Amino acid sequence: MNKIAKGIESLRTEMKAAGVQAFYISGTDPHQSEYVPDHWQGRAFISGFTGSAGTVLVSQNEAALWTDSRYFLQAERELEGTGIQLMKLGMAETPSPVEWIGNQLFKGEKLGVDASCLSINQFNSFQKELSKFQIEVSPVEDLLMNVWENRPTIPVDKIFEHDEKFVGQTRRDKIEHLRQEMKKSGADYLLITALDDLAWTLNLRGTDVDFNPVFLGYGVIGLEKVWLFVDEVKLEKPLREKLTYEKILLKPYNEVNSFLNEISVSSQMLIDPSKTNQQLFNNLSDKCHPVYRNSIPTELKAKKMGIEIDHIHHAMRRDGVAMVEFLYWLNQTVGNEEITELDVARKLHDFRSKQANFFGDSFFPIVGYREHGAVVHYHVTDETAKNIQPNGFLLVDSGGQYFDGTTDITRTIALSEPTEQEKKDFTLVLKGMIALATAKFPEGTKGCNLDLLARKALWQHGLNYGHGTGHGVGYFLNVHEGPMSIRQEFNEYAIQSGMVISNEPGLYRDGEYGIRIENLIVCVEKGELGFGKFLGFETLTLCPIDQKAITISLMDSFEIDWLNQYHQRVFDELSPLLDDKKKTFLKELTQPIHS
Amino acid sequence: MNKIAKGIESLRTEMKAAGVQAFYISGTDPHQSEYVPDHWQGRAFISGFTGSAGTVLVSQNEAALWTDSRYFLQAERELEGTGIQLMKLGMAETPSPVEWIGNQLFKGEKLGVDASCLSINQFNSFQKELSKFQIEVSPVEDLLMNVWENRPTIPVDKIFEHDEKFVGQTRRDKIEHLRQEMKKSGADYLLITALDDLAWTLNLRGTDVDFNPVFLGYGVIGLEKVWLFVDEVKLEKPLREKLTYEKILLKPYNEVNSFLNEISVSSQMLIDPSKTNQQLFNNLSDKCHPVYRNSIPTELKAKKMGIEIDHIHHAMRRDGVAMVEFLYWLNQTVGNEEITELDVARKLHDFRSKQANFFGDSFFPIVGYREHGAVVHYHVTDETAKNIQPNGFLLVDSGGQYFDGTTDITRTIALSEPTEQEKKDFTLVLKGMIALATAKFPEGTKGCNLDLLARKALWQHGLNYGHGTGHGVGYFLNVHEGPMSIRQEFNEYAIQSGMVISNEPGLYRDGEYGIRIENLIVCVEKGELGFGKFLGFETLTLCPIDQKAITISLMDSFEIDWLNQYHQRVFDELSPLLDDKKKTFLKELTQPIHS
Repeated sequence: MNKIAKGIESLRTEMKAAGVQAFYISGTDPHQSEYVPDHWQGRAFISGFTGSAGTVLVSQNEAALWTDSRYFLQAERELEGTGIQLMKLGMAETPSPVEWIGNQLFKGEKLGVDASCLSINQFNSFQKELSKFQIEVSPVEDLLMNVWENRPTIPVDKIFEHDEKFVGQTRRDKIEHLRQEMKKSGADYLLITALDDLAWTLNLRGTDVDFNPVFLGYGVIGLEKVWLFVDEVKLEKPLREKLTYEKILLKPYNEVNSFLNEISVSSQMLIDPSKTNQQLFNNLSDKCHPVYRNSIPTELKAKKMGIEIDHIHHAMRRDGVAMVEFLYWLNQTVGNEEITELDVARKLHDFRSKQANFFGDSFFPIVGYREHGAVVHYHVTDETAKNIQPNGFLLVDSGGQYFDGTTDITRTIALSEPTEQEKKDFTLVLKGMIALATAKFPEGTKGCNLDLLARKALWQHGLNYGHGTGHGVGYFLNVHEGPMSIRQEFNEYAIQSGMVISNEPGLYRDGEYGIRIENLIVCVEKGELGFGKFLGFETLTLCPIDQKAITISLMDSFEIDWLNQYHQRVFDELSPLLDDKKKTFLKELTQPIHS
Repeated sequence: MNKIAKGIESLRTEMKAAGVQAFYISGTDPHQSEYVPDHWQGRAFISGFTGSAGTVLVSQNEAALWTDSRYFLQAERELEGTGIQLMKLGMAETPSPVEWIGNQLFKGEKLGVDASCLSINQFNSFQKELSKFQIEVSPVEDLLMNVWENRPTIPVDKIFEHDEKFVGQTRRDKIEHLRQEMKKSGADYLLITALDDLAWTLNLRGTDVDFNPVFLGYGVIGLEKVWLFVDEVKLEKPLREKLTYEKILLKPYNEVNSFLNEISVSSQMLIDPSKTNQQLFNNLSDKCHPVYRNSIPTELKAKKMGIEIDHIHHAMRRDGVAMVEFLYWLNQTVGNEEITELDVARKLHDFRSKQANFFGDSFFPIVGYREHGAVVHYHVTDETAKNIQPNGFLLVDSGGQYFDGTTDITRTIALSEPTEQEKKDFTLVLKGMIALATAKFPEGTKGCNLDLLARKALWQHGLNYGHGTGHGVGYFLNVHEGPMSIRQEFNEYAIQSGMVISNEPGLYRDGEYGIRIENLIVCVEKGELGFGKFLGFETLTLCPIDQKAITISLMDSFEIDWLNQYHQRVFDELSPLLDDKKKTFLKELTQPIHS
């Protein structure tokens, strides 16, 4: 019997003991994180599937894994021989997890869930949907506890302060701001569960997960006191003393549940039901009334402060220098030395790590040569890494965590003279990127109202891309952050000044190549003329766009002017930081074009 | 004591007798209609306010009317001396009706509502919101019954058939289609409550309300039978016999409630909770389980059939002829004869009524000269009608009901050489109209994703308009119909082929002038190139756009080409139907422009 089958067998024994006929593994952690510490990678343990998205359901007779199209091939390979069925999300014939459970279980039976890894919203939705089948959702312990041998422990990495010279506001001021917002809602407490919300509020950072500089913990803001729930060993004595001096009360990570349970005074607590797990909710004292509201720290941190934007500009210059050095290396190397996609990823990291204030990569770089560029979330490995030849498109999506900003940039590089179709595709993507970068719109406009700008040129030619156009980006925090977005789907949050967002249209031709051009932009005010306040964007990212791949006749004079001005700015801001060879190289890459 | 005060006093007596401390007058009818028969104009009776939108609340001590900014001035005037307070919707200081009731009533008291004039959704929302104040929502009789002397009776106008030569599908086929959809939802019955849904389903029309060719009635589609609830006198014998022959069972209008109540077999009924009144819901038999679903007739009728589109093209030609004759008359008359906005409205009606298949206006025309054009829903009356001089902008928004189509068109006419600002404004509006008319977009795109096209040129100049860009238009039915829309606000319905929608960006300068250019467009398929099916629009409306008001330098060659081709088409399609004088006139109006 293989390892997977054995794990599932043990889990079924645990299920019987717990009195549930099926068990759900959400794939996330108690903080609803995108990147999850190894301790909570139960999906990979139980199924063998190593992709970054998916959920698993196990009944007494069957087991299934739901994942999206990015991972169909990988999941098929990894699930082979495990007896776990692959459920392809987005296909008409695929049953939803709820339908699957409804089919597997009899009326009156129970679905077990680890309530600590399910948000209140998810739990309620399960409960509502499954009640139609008369199936009960039963919060049980984490049943993997006794099943998973050598399970990684919960990380206890050290927490560090985000240096005062980089922060936008002291934690005292942030807490004060949160309290003002709490008072507006008549709340006595604010529960902070998302790791980036907690890190932002307290100006603390950590290394508990890959790429996101966050640490495991919970926070509770009271009107007078603040409680921070983290493992004691994570705090060195000086920081512990400093926090204590600032009247931030330290409690063990696990005590958040008993803390919530022991609130003995009639009170109200602000809770974000999409970010708070059901176990916390279940533990909340009867005296404490939950008030549902979207996370206030999430809303506040999305609007970067002036001082943060200033820092980001500095970080962008250093990231731009690293990118130009990378492009120079690529130009020198391709065709002369044997390099693979993986070498490119490593080289990018090397160039960034030489820059001041560098902390690490902001995500695992996507380096897609030729047809790999068409795999939107391509994850290069030793096995898949292609050799890069002096021809075709190379798509490189990467970013850095700096103490003074988080970057995320995509460039698509033509390693030889592109074909007419390649140039047309590249130009249409670029037109979309410029259209969004130069948008002007009234206050209150939402992402779904703006997304068209990035797509219109492609749509006019019957082309499209299957991902969103823009996501929020943290400030030395998660490269993906909410609450707003720029995409076709509705998102209730308007785009507001100070928000840092990615601008990344693309085009992907299966089996041929992928194109994506991504800059970060920041929303700024654009004045008002009697028709309300208008907003727009400024581009933050500084790196040349490959002009070899442009069909100039497809661009109008406004777009050409924008590109020339952008390239002039890239040269002006980066060249003082480059040696002569690279300065000359950059000068060539940023030559103005003419219609 | 004036008439209004007397009415309110009597209402308060009725309230006491019914045991409620406040009473709500919704302003609509049992069908949630936009245009309401006089019988249900209780808002106007009780308050004296004659605007087309508003709600009234009466408590034992106070009374208040909520309406929107279009009607602030009118309401202030009409409410003077009545003791009814004007509640200005959209102002921060205005309490919501729920807040007002919460303030007026004590815990445990009751708000009375006429459940027949409140949708299920509205009723539930009231109940939920008022439960916070521990106030009960109590469905009582229509308390105006004994208060309103000489109340207009429920109209018993004759119903007529939509001629077979114009309909897109027989009612038998429509009913069959509805039954297929019902079966997908496992439903035994479909309840039809919206008057346009009913008229569409049965290919019947009426004259019970202004402008919308509908009749009062309810329908129930069963899997075998169809019930139509209408007053018997509305059906002449031949039609009654025809319907009976087609197995459509006729029942009196009021018997719908007892019918629902007497369903004795366990069954499921599809109900649209936004279109079905709470009284019907309350009367539904315990045996019959309501299944909530958006109205299927609403969804089906929005996608016009090929044969309907063909007819609409014909209607558009005749409507275009009427418009050209109107423009010719205007050109001959302004400056030579004294004419007012009201004369323009009458003249428009006259020109349309000379056309074949004309049935009536599709709404009360908006004729706004100079600053009146900036009042978005300006309703000209004898008192307000301005004299029209040979200078400034005249905005004319009008439409006709033809047996073969419903039209809705806005043109803004420069009665002298416009100023630079006027021309710039006009051109920016036109650019938006052209951008939407020439859109190309993937299947699944929603109105909020497309709305930007109509606004982008304005937004780039810091300008905007405060209304939606596009509403659905019926086929010899209501000029406003759902379910889709093109506006900033999210609407779950995608734009689908066959949908007829208005394309009407505008710009309004308070106290100066208003500009709106409106054509109807129909969504059509635009092929597919490996990136999914694409859709676009064809413009249906045929009428010249005033080129005097264009700043050509603001338009790009694509826009100029579109306008020239459109004008060529307008001339080609309308000129054969015009006499020589008007043909020459149209030739001038449709001359190509050059950059």
